[in-house]
Amino acid sequence: MVIVMKHAAPQEIIEKIHNKMVELGCKVHKSQGENYCLLGLVGETSKIQESQLLANPYVDRVLRVQHPFKLASRLFHPEDTVIDIEGHKIGGKNKPCIMAGPCSVESEDQLLTIARAVKESGAQLLRGGAYKPRTSPYSFQGLGEEGLKLLLKAKEETGMPIVTEVMDTETFETVEKYADILQIGARNMQNFPLLKKAGRSNKVILLKRGLSATIEEFLMSAEYIMSEGNPNVILCERGIRTFETYTRNTLDISAIPIIQELSHLPIIVDPSHATGKWSTVEPLSKASIAIGAHGLIIEVHHEPELALSDGAQSLKPEKFNRLMNSITKISNMND
Amino acid sequence: MVIVMKHAAPQEIIEKIHNKMVELGCKVHKSQGENYCLLGLVGETSKIQESQLLANPYVDRVLRVQHPFKLASRLFHPEDTVIDIEGHKIGGKNKPCIMAGPCSVESEDQLLTIARAVKESGAQLLRGGAYKPRTSPYSFQGLGEEGLKLLLKAKEETGMPIVTEVMDTETFETVEKYADILQIGARNMQNFPLLKKAGRSNKVILLKRGLSATIEEFLMSAEYIMSEGNPNVILCERGIRTFETYTRNTLDISAIPIIQELSHLPIIVDPSHATGKWSTVEPLSKASIAIGAHGLIIEVHHEPELALSDGAQSLKPEKFNRLMNSITKISNMND
Amino acid sequence: MVIVMKHAAPQEIIEKIHNKMVELGCKVHKSQGENYCLLGLVGETSKIQESQLLANPYVDRVLRVQHPFKLASRLFHPEDTVIDIEGHKIGGKNKPCIMAGPCSVESEDQLLTIARAVKESGAQLLRGGAYKPRTSPYSFQGLGEEGLKLLLKAKEETGMPIVTEVMDTETFETVEKYADILQIGARNMQNFPLLKKAGRSNKVILLKRGLSATIEEFLMSAEYIMSEGNPNVILCERGIRTFETYTRNTLDISAIPIIQELSHLPIIVDPSHATGKWSTVEPLSKASIAIGAHGLIIEVHHEPELALSDGAQSLKPEKFNRLMNSITKISNMND
Amino acid sequence: MVIVMKHAAPQEIIEKIHNKMVELGCKVHKSQGENYCLLGLVGETSKIQESQLLANPYVDRVLRVQHPFKLASRLFHPEDTVIDIEGHKIGGKNKPCIMAGPCSVESEDQLLTIARAVKESGAQLLRGGAYKPRTSPYSFQGLGEEGLKLLLKAKEETGMPIVTEVMDTETFETVEKYADILQIGARNMQNFPLLKKAGRSNKVILLKRGLSATIEEFLMSAEYIMSEGNPNVILCERGIRTFETYTRNTLDISAIPIIQELSHLPIIVDPSHATGKWSTVEPLSKASIAIGAHGLIIEVHHEPELALSDGAQSLKPEKFNRLMNSITKISNMND
Repeated sequence: MVIVMKHAAPQEIIEKIHNKMVELGCKVHKSQGENYCLLGLVGETSKIQESQLLANPYVDRVLRVQHPFKLASRLFHPEDTVIDIEGHKIGGKNKPCIMAGPCSVESEDQLLTIARAVKESGAQLLRGGAYKPRTSPYSFQGLGEEGLKLLLKAKEETGMPIVTEVMDTETFETVEKYADILQIGARNMQNFPLLKKAGRSNKVILLKRGLSATIEEFLMSAEYIMSEGNPNVILCERGIRTFETYTRNTLDISAIPIIQELSHLPIIVDPSHATGKWSTVEPLSKASIAIGAHGLIIEVHHEPELALSDGAQSLKPEKFNRLMNSITKISNMND
Repeated sequence: MVIVMKHAAPQEIIEKIHNKMVELGCKVHKSQGENYCLLGLVGETSKIQESQLLANPYVDRVLRVQHPFKLASRLFHPEDTVIDIEGHKIGGKNKPCIMAGPCSVESEDQLLTIARAVKESGAQLLRGGAYKPRTSPYSFQGLGEEGLKLLLKAKEETGMPIVTEVMDTETFETVEKYADILQIGARNMQNFPLLKKAGRSNKVILLKRGLSATIEEFLMSAEYIMSEGNPNVILCERGIRTFETYTRNTLDISAIPIIQELSHLPIIVDPSHATGKWSTVEPLSKASIAIGAHGLIIEVHHEPELALSDGAQSLKPEKFNRLMNSITKISNMND
Repeated sequence: MVIVMKHAAPQEIIEKIHNKMVELGCKVHKSQGENYCLLGLVGETSKIQESQLLANPYVDRVLRVQHPFKLASRLFHPEDTVIDIEGHKIGGKNKPCIMAGPCSVESEDQLLTIARAVKESGAQLLRGGAYKPRTSPYSFQGLGEEGLKLLLKAKEETGMPIVTEVMDTETFETVEKYADILQIGARNMQNFPLLKKAGRSNKVILLKRGLSATIEEFLMSAEYIMSEGNPNVILCERGIRTFETYTRNTLDISAIPIIQELSHLPIIVDPSHATGKWSTVEPLSKASIAIGAHGLIIEVHHEPELALSDGAQSLKPEKFNRLMNSITKISNMND
Repeated sequence: MVIVMKHAAPQEIIEKIHNKMVELGCKVHKSQGENYCLLGLVGETSKIQESQLLANPYVDRVLRVQHPFKLASRLFHPEDTVIDIEGHKIGGKNKPCIMAGPCSVESEDQLLTIARAVKESGAQLLRGGAYKPRTSPYSFQGLGEEGLKLLLKAKEETGMPIVTEVMDTETFETVEKYADILQIGARNMQNFPLLKKAGRSNKVILLKRGLSATIEEFLMSAEYIMSEGNPNVILCERGIRTFETYTRNTLDISAIPIIQELSHLPIIVDPSHATGKWSTVEPLSKASIAIGAHGLIIEVHHEPELALSDGAQSLKPEKFNRLMNSITKISNMND
């Protein structure tokens, strides 16, 4: 950590801060320049509260050197985390894991039709929403536990483990009972009570990046889960909000290699939510696999024109099949 | 609603969509151009699912004409909503209502010192956090119910009603028992189970705009609360996320007049979180009052250099007093 | 400047960089932590190229301490710059200076009608575009020198000095001949040859902030002009680009107090371009004056429904008159 | 185009606008709803000025249906444009074209060393800056015409055609004399006089997307060039500005398939500027080729730690060679 003192800072204030930092357990090196004075801190800086320092009118800036996440950091855990879901491995050098299925579970017939189709095309995990976070209170809110039961039925028939969203602490145990991977949605990325609850679960957590979350905040939310004892976190990049209006969001594809540098956790891509347009799902999937994403999560619907949610970004089964062929070629080439 | 059909759309597809829209209860007018065909829809469009239409490869775009919010809309409720908290009125032509206090409740001594000071300077309501949403799991998480009890004590002494944050559905009833206004934080603006719970409460809800929420999404979150039966919602603009790094967020001050055009709900400003810098709190407060905000919520701490959270943006009592004088002058001038 | 070396950096690389920095004229203090090594640099750091340091794979980050602008910085020039345009003073503690007029000069009749009206309402300077930067090549591109001549005529009649845009180095001298203040538009904020040309002019330059320019970049563009010898720069905040679509841009009102902290140059606000909606021009003007802007530049048109550009954000003369009354009250109150 | 009239709009105003639109040559269909009245316009809408309509207080919104670009639009030019630079083909189904070289031309030795290296690795075109747009007036501004002469020498030795930036209308002819492709940089994307000049050149123009330009604005800038008579435009996505600070910009990779839908022009990617970090250049290059970009432009330097600009994002020749191998595999797979 580096404390930049303002030009006008009196020597006694600099001394006072210097001494307080030493008290808190740091080594401090002072560099006195003509216009600024720098205090370089090493050692135990975790007890220092940046915001308290900034409350001092003679402190110009506080520059943090160390990332605030530890358990999620590659610095303290150099090997890739690999997560095993009933034999399907996610992370490290494993082949990308493909999760596919409808946005919402609508009926047994709908779910089974889609589940069979995506399984046949090579998807390993089945996605489907039973509790749906919707921008409008007047939109379809999901089938709830009834939807979870249908997912379980689909799992029994196809053998595909289930990924489904958990929306709050109250329905957490219900979702936990049925699902193999609990998804925490973008809008809940900083729902801290939910993160803590997820951290006390023994299920794998799929954490989506918030709409305007920085990479550091994203990893801090993973840290929340891990700090409660659950090391099984899969990260998911799903597009961030920018000024561009042609797409619903902007896929931040650079986040993949950067997160792989900063963290040991697996990172997958959701190309369906990234743009909200079905026609870009296949191209974005190819790019994501080429850049080294550990997996994809894709919305598929056999009748998107009748889908109760996200029809615009859902692929028909035949288009999903073509996508699987394209990405398999790229993924093989990466070997 | 307007459906824009692509150049290449066959006549039969256009007919099919036309008929389906009529079935759903709309009147449809077709305008056939050389490069596009427009279907203009009026009447009952609320059952139409945009996303299903967009799933059709011959549909180019769907342009919505009507705002998706109704209860929050001024169109259907032209008079200003005025909220009364033990005699303090918020909204409409009333004088701006000032809420002030520490970011976090830390101790009885800290809270009472600050409460007395802000009351003396003219603040009407007392703010203070007992449950704290923190980016890092290693930061101070608030005193919980103990903090709520201290707030009640401060209310008993000063007579100031309490504004405090509620973070999840599980602790909702606890917070509801003590607080006069329940604040839903920016990171929870789209925590839909929490919004629904707030909608079933009979307490006033202070809803903060999400870090990257559009004005429409913000009003849709108010709609969630109102659609469950609670009409007492105060909106709060607190800065949005942009590329600018000199301030923590960018106060979207235009949102004040625009929300006042679109909605009848009161809208206040949080200048402390808007930039994260104490030195800009007074200037932003003046601008907010000048533009017609219905109130302000401001962080004050007598020892910001020791504050357990948000010291950098907290005003000392004497600075808060100066701020109150400045805004009173502007507010009187608006009469 | 602080150089953060990666965990794995070998001692000899650290030494090498240390020595090179000393060679370039800095004093260097090393703080060796467990996970990082910091090199704190003071003294003459201006010759150090950040990008070269970052090319070294063992360098994690380079944290700059000093702002890169000098001539524009308040640190080296504590007193406010006040600019005098034929007796109208802009900057410092002077009353806000109001510039008003049509977006484009369209005809003698149009210009004179508007000029007389804004003068009567109390505007000091006349704005009007002769060379127009338009997003579409098919839109009206301005009257060119003919427009400048009309501006001069309007000045002769009303006595109001002229603010008009200069778009490139080729037409620079022409515009310079007629105008009192040369405006450099948002899209040209980093047109460096144009900035250099402006720096060699003896006319006052009104520099608008780029659509996605940070405050630092904005001040660096002022630095470009000043570094060529022209100290007479007025800055103009005119809205930045964000995800919000309800307004064309988002007025960054916090930029006013922040730029006043960082720089001695006058800073004014353009409320017309900030949102693109006439109904928000008056509220934003009031907020801007309350926060301490040194002036405003406002689009006025007597027949906005026939305006050749920016009709949607132009005020009618009677609305402009009302605006002048409101801001005068606020401005008097600031005394 | 669709005009949405406000609820309160009197019938006579609706009639007046209706008639004016018919006068301008449109067919108008009116759809009268309970809360809104829609005017759907087809036919010749190009003469309608949106901003004039919006100046009418009874007009709520104007929704444009047709894209404002024509020459750049695939609608009116369905076949891919393929550009031929001395036998190297860019666009359509051709293999991706790779342009590589230093950020700035620094010396004959530097340029030739790098040119030979990139040629040997398979690059087809040589990039290198002689006129450099730099954020700071105190940074290296390029060698000017001297740099262009060195580029020509390098071309003579290696046979590689030259891509180099042109910064303003004054030096346009000089750059045009030496270069094969004239690059217009991101900060000049809306420098309209420069675009017009480029439109009157017979050289190929490489147009970079502005830092915060929408896809539509990007295509409108291409339209500017084309409307002056030059059809040879190559588009270049180079990252947009977002709130993420870990990378300098955010590569908007979705822009590739979307621009290929909207336009017939070739589109390439600049992975070096997209993040500003050399370690992400190879991953982003792979993703770009997988998604179907028509080429790449990459910064290479044999001694990035001594580079006069952009060292942090420059690849060493051996890393560039590895990159070429990776992308060749992906590109072959696309066949």
